[in-house]
Formats: sequence, structure tokens, C-alpha cells
Amino acid sequence: MTGYVKDDLDLEEVERQKALYGPFAQSVRELVDVAIRTTVDDDEIRRAQGEIEAIVSRLRTSQLDGPYGVRFGAEGRGRPWGNTVVGLRNGAAPPLVIDHDDTGRAWSDFHLGAAYEGPPGLVHGGVSALLLDQMLGEAAGAGGKPGMTGTLTLVYRRGTPLGDLRAESWIERSEGIKTWAKGHIIGPEGVTVEAEGVFILPRWARAALERQDPDKPTPSYFE
Amino acid sequence: MTGYVKDDLDLEEVERQKALYGPFAQSVRELVDVAIRTTVDDDEIRRAQGEIEAIVSRLRTSQLDGPYGVRFGAEGRGRPWGNTVVGLRNGAAPPLVIDHDDTGRAWSDFHLGAAYEGPPGLVHGGVSALLLDQMLGEAAGAGGKPGMTGTLTLVYRRGTPLGDLRAESWIERSEGIKTWAKGHIIGPEGVTVEAEGVFILPRWARAALERQDPDKPTPSYFE
Repeated sequence: MTGYVKDDLDLEEVERQKALYGPFAQSVRELVDVAIRTTVDDDEIRRAQGEIEAIVSRLRTSQLDGPYGVRFGAEGRGRPWGNTVVGLRNGAAPPLVIDHDDTGRAWSDFHLGAAYEGPPGLVHGGVSALLLDQMLGEAAGAGGKPGMTGTLTLVYRRGTPLGDLRAESWIERSEGIKTWAKGHIIGPEGVTVEAEGVFILPRWARAALERQDPDKPTPSYFE
Repeated sequence: MTGYVKDDLDLEEVERQKALYGPFAQSVRELVDVAIRTTVDDDEIRRAQGEIEAIVSRLRTSQLDGPYGVRFGAEGRGRPWGNTVVGLRNGAAPPLVIDHDDTGRAWSDFHLGAAYEGPPGLVHGGVSALLLDQMLGEAAGAGGKPGMTGTLTLVYRRGTPLGDLRAESWIERSEGIKTWAKGHIIGPEGVTVEAEGVFILPRWARAALERQDPDKPTPSYFE
């Protein structure tokens, strides 16, 4: 597997980078939001575009060849900072901050704004699927049964309004390399979307787990 | 339904706005990408953050109170410009440009970069779900059977590599207000993810279709 990069950052350096890149990515999120909603005049839009292009040029003078991947340090915990759902550095990610316990439960309180709209005023049905895929995968990993998504089924009970929301997930059962997880999104009027998925431990990760390979992360979740 | 705003823009004005906001949102997408990948020094990150915050402040001096919704003009076609998958003004959207025919087939060729990563180098499984939800909904709408997602099932055949991809979708069958649609994503090595969904025409839209209400859009798809 490419993309799992062992960089041996110590915890202090990881914290320093979080403090740098977290607020930076947050400014990008704000820009994504206002780019949808702004009603300033055309000249102001063009001026902003020119300035953004100049910033992009400066930031591209030194960059990774490809995506961020998952980097991990001396202590073995992965940093999926480009991840579409939880990525600290990803301006397209809400990002979700997900809590877990070691029985395989996960939960997250979060806010979705204009960038996550499908039907007017509602969360895009596919965004609910995106977030629940991550939530179910994290529940499986939290319970010691990590895997990549094999199947995922969503049942939409009612529209999910944009705004403050909660997601919860848990392991339903597990057999060998397969784990069944469930979860849902809760809006102001109750559960809006339910999900069930099967998560399967990939072959390379089985080998890494068995060997405790120091050059591979201890898998916790894969997405 | 709130959020469907009839603004009576004529086609010329719609084209003018596309030419303005399309390149502007593209600059925001570039910024999202490089914010994940840049390796410039800390001072440069902080300088970029300050500049982005200043741009955001200027753009927020005049903005919509909430999300973009779906606006539609004299000719009745909706403009879902904030939509997470296809939104012209959404820097978090790839955005997909989706072709259709009136038999209920839809297809799209697109590129996914660093912002859509789950496992290292691979498209987030939930992003595949997000895109396929839109694709299936558009197939249903293209075939004259629009609806909101009722259920959606994804089967993951292999990892989907980041890069150039194609999605295809079609109506499988239809009964009254329910339409079953299928679709898949195709990578360099073939089909990576398959989807099946049921799309249901909401009650308010049934009424609008029957009345041909001039203050509601002719529904084509809902997400």
C-alpha cells in the first residue's frame, strides 16, 4: 500500500502542525461557504478571484506530488488530514470530530452549512451517505474490527435540515474479517437517515496486524 | 417548500453569471486542493490565512441569509449552484457535469483530486456514495421520474483510485411515484462501485406537477 507514510513526527510536532493547519483550513472552509452565498458586485468577485489565484500560486511553489495520504508518527496513530470527512487540512470536509469508545461506538456533533446542500435547505442525501460511511467505519475500527467498506445501505426517513446535527454508529456483529456496523443521523425532529454497512479487513492489513509491521500503521479505520 | 426561488433571470443573465461564478469557484477549488498539499513554510501559511480571512470578510459584506437553494428563471430550469456534487458555485463540489438522455440514462466524466481521499490514494468510499446518489437521482429525473432518495445501496467491488473517473446511471423500473435506478463508477480497471436506489416523488412536487404551478420549478431531480 502506498500512501501510508511513516514520518516519525513526535506528538509535540503533531500538535504544532494542528495549531498551524487547523485554523488555515478553517479559513478555506469559510471561503467555500461565502463563495456560494455572496452577493457582492461583479468587480469584487473578480478581484477576490485574482487574489485567490495569487495565493494558490504561492502555496503551489512547494507541495506534495499527490494527495496527503495517511501519515503516521512514532506512536503509530494515523493522521488522515486530507480525508473528505475528517481531514484537518481539507477545506471541503466539515470536518467531523468523532468520539469513540473501545466497545465500537462512535458519535459526533457537527454543523453542515451551505456547501452540503442538496434539495433547498436540506443536506444532500449523498452527504449523509458520505458521513455515515465514515461513522460506521470508525465504529468498526474503535471496536478493534477495522475494515474497508464492502457494502453500505442507506434508508432515508425524512429530509435532514442543514444546521446542527448528530451522528451515532456502533458495531452490530463481527465474524472473522467482516464487521457489520449500523448508524444514523439525528436532526431536530429525530432520526433522518439510517445506515448499515459491512466492513472488511483488507489482506495487506491482516498481514500487517499479524506481523505488527513497524512500517505500517496499526489500522484503526481506512477512510 | 422554501428554497425554490423563482428569480426570472433570462438565459443571457444566467450565462453571464455562469461566466462570472464558474471561474471564481474554480479558484476556490484550487485553494482547497493546495491547502491539503502545500509544504511551504509556516510564515507563508499564516500570511495566506490572513489574506483569505480578509477576502472572506469582504465577500460577507453582502450575502444570502442562508444556503443558495435552487433558483429558477423564466424558462423553468433549476439552478442548484450550491449543490455539493454539481454546484457551479460550490468549491467543495468536483463539480460533476452530468449528461442525460430522455430515456433515463445519465453519464459523467470527471476528475477527483486530493480533497476526495479516504484510504491513501483512493476515493473515499462515502464520496462514491455521494456522487452515485446524485447520478441515480439525475437518471430518474432525466427519464421523467424525479424523486428524492428513499433508499440507496452501494456495493464496493474494488478501491477507486483518485484521478480520472466515469459514472453512469439509468432507470431500472418505475411504479407510480417510485423509481428504481442503478449506476456505477468506472476506474482504469473497470467498475469499482455499484449503486441501486429508490427515488420517491415528494407530495408537494406531485401537486406542483399536476397543477403546473408557475411558481414552482418543473422538478427534474432533487439533489
